[in-house]
Amino acid sequence: MPYCNMDRLYEAVAEKGPVCVGLDTAPDYLPPLERARYAGDADAVLAYNRAIIDATAAAAACYKIQIAYYEVLGVAGLECYAKTLALARERGVPVIADIKRGDIADTARQYASAHFSGGFEADFVTLSPYMGMDSIAPWFTWAETKGKGAFVLMRTSNRGMLDFEHLELRGPAPDGSAAPRRVYDAVGEKLAALAETLGGVHGYGAFGAVVGADPKSDDERKEAQRLRSRYAGLFFLIPGYGAQGGGAADAALLLRDGNGGVVNASRSILKAWTKAAGADTADFAFAAGAARRAAEEMRDALRDAAER
Amino acid sequence: MPYCNMDRLYEAVAEKGPVCVGLDTAPDYLPPLERARYAGDADAVLAYNRAIIDATAAAAACYKIQIAYYEVLGVAGLECYAKTLALARERGVPVIADIKRGDIADTARQYASAHFSGGFEADFVTLSPYMGMDSIAPWFTWAETKGKGAFVLMRTSNRGMLDFEHLELRGPAPDGSAAPRRVYDAVGEKLAALAETLGGVHGYGAFGAVVGADPKSDDERKEAQRLRSRYAGLFFLIPGYGAQGGGAADAALLLRDGNGGVVNASRSILKAWTKAAGADTADFAFAAGAARRAAEEMRDALRDAAER
Repeated sequence: MPYCNMDRLYEAVAEKGPVCVGLDTAPDYLPPLERARYAGDADAVLAYNRAIIDATAAAAACYKIQIAYYEVLGVAGLECYAKTLALARERGVPVIADIKRGDIADTARQYASAHFSGGFEADFVTLSPYMGMDSIAPWFTWAETKGKGAFVLMRTSNRGMLDFEHLELRGPAPDGSAAPRRVYDAVGEKLAALAETLGGVHGYGAFGAVVGADPKSDDERKEAQRLRSRYAGLFFLIPGYGAQGGGAADAALLLRDGNGGVVNASRSILKAWTKAAGADTADFAFAAGAARRAAEEMRDALRDAAER
Repeated sequence: MPYCNMDRLYEAVAEKGPVCVGLDTAPDYLPPLERARYAGDADAVLAYNRAIIDATAAAAACYKIQIAYYEVLGVAGLECYAKTLALARERGVPVIADIKRGDIADTARQYASAHFSGGFEADFVTLSPYMGMDSIAPWFTWAETKGKGAFVLMRTSNRGMLDFEHLELRGPAPDGSAAPRRVYDAVGEKLAALAETLGGVHGYGAFGAVVGADPKSDDERKEAQRLRSRYAGLFFLIPGYGAQGGGAADAALLLRDGNGGVVNASRSILKAWTKAAGADTADFAFAAGAARRAAEEMRDALRDAAER
């Protein structure tokens, strides 16, 4: 099996822990005194991202950049997005473009070219599976040729996941188990088959899955454990930590011996400065220091939870 | 019920027929002699879009712009995307931003602000339902305040729709019918409920659905008729016409008396010039004339099919 970005990510987690720093950088997350010194919000966000990346690169297995927070700033925002991608990749830290694309094959080819090469090149993307595997296949050719990776939405952490992802399908589970087979299982089964076609050297498929870490009950905790054991060959991108409600113990349920996934936190890192003494006069350097400590604390909490 | 963009679209179809011209403008769709005169592909695509819009505005109920074809050209491509949106809207023709977004509520709010206001403002967007209705709700607030509209992926025309959209759910259909209840029905039911909450003056919800027009068998034709009658309050965006394989008779199955939906064609209009006598020396004006005739022929074919 070839070496791919998912292997780089596995090795980054082994070295630095499973923290994924989310650069969902809304302008109002920035310390206002320094933000006001920039001509526009796109410039301020880029400078803030640079400070955050410098401060957290040693504690982050990877970065995830949510493109929505850049699109809302228009063309200038997308220039900032491209430069932020480049900044993180220049440091050698893998970057996930959180774009959740999903479209027919002809269109997917355009998107894949846009986000796996050229000005918006990322190491990983997130994809939405609704339209089926022919919407995923054009991205997969980039795994074969350039080692690129993706995380496909499977079982997300928002309440709306009950609407469609969680619905129960007719017919028995293919593995013969008595557990209900849900829409997200149909997605997971296809991804598991894909992982067998093309996987990295560390036992995970080149494409992984988005699986959320915010169980609201013991049943949901059992479901998380079932997902982790049933889809052992899928590397998980785990959102929902921190500001979205999930804790280290919940996220650790979706890891395997502390690896096999990365846990994303955005606001709890980007806005860590607001809870520090001296927030009133914070500049970007102050906020970056608070972000570094928040990322380190998250890494340590996840390590402790995984060892428990 | 308030007047909304879906009403504008209904009235445009009543006046001009149900043709949606897709501006999925790949640079190699352009006549090469004139394309070569531009400094960059983004400039050439914008000039071509302008010629196509000028030539087809009288025959098009709306335009649909597929953002992937612009993202692949980088930041310059997104400038071209913004300007193309503005060109079509200045002519008073409604524009659908084909972006298929679907994300958690905080992120959806950013996306909605990006695509329903500011530099990327469109009249409609396309959305992906996988993550559930809390990923749709932030867009819906723009229907309430500004009359904006959306088309949510429901039953698409690609083969991959069999992978997840078409899977059968456990349990009886809510309407008590014997027909299987599929994942796309779960989506349709939620959209139908939403349409009852906020609909336009012409009997359609502010948010409609993407339903494909490329039936491969009589069973699929029956399925199309069932979808049309079961979701009578949903305006359909119907892809799959022309280059994607579907014909006028198939598309007409998804209309109601020639309205209640728009039928998209992209390549068969943008590349119509390649089939015209004189293609060897075609310029943009020549190609725009061919596009106008292709749009008019499509309109007439759909009108004939709807009357049959």
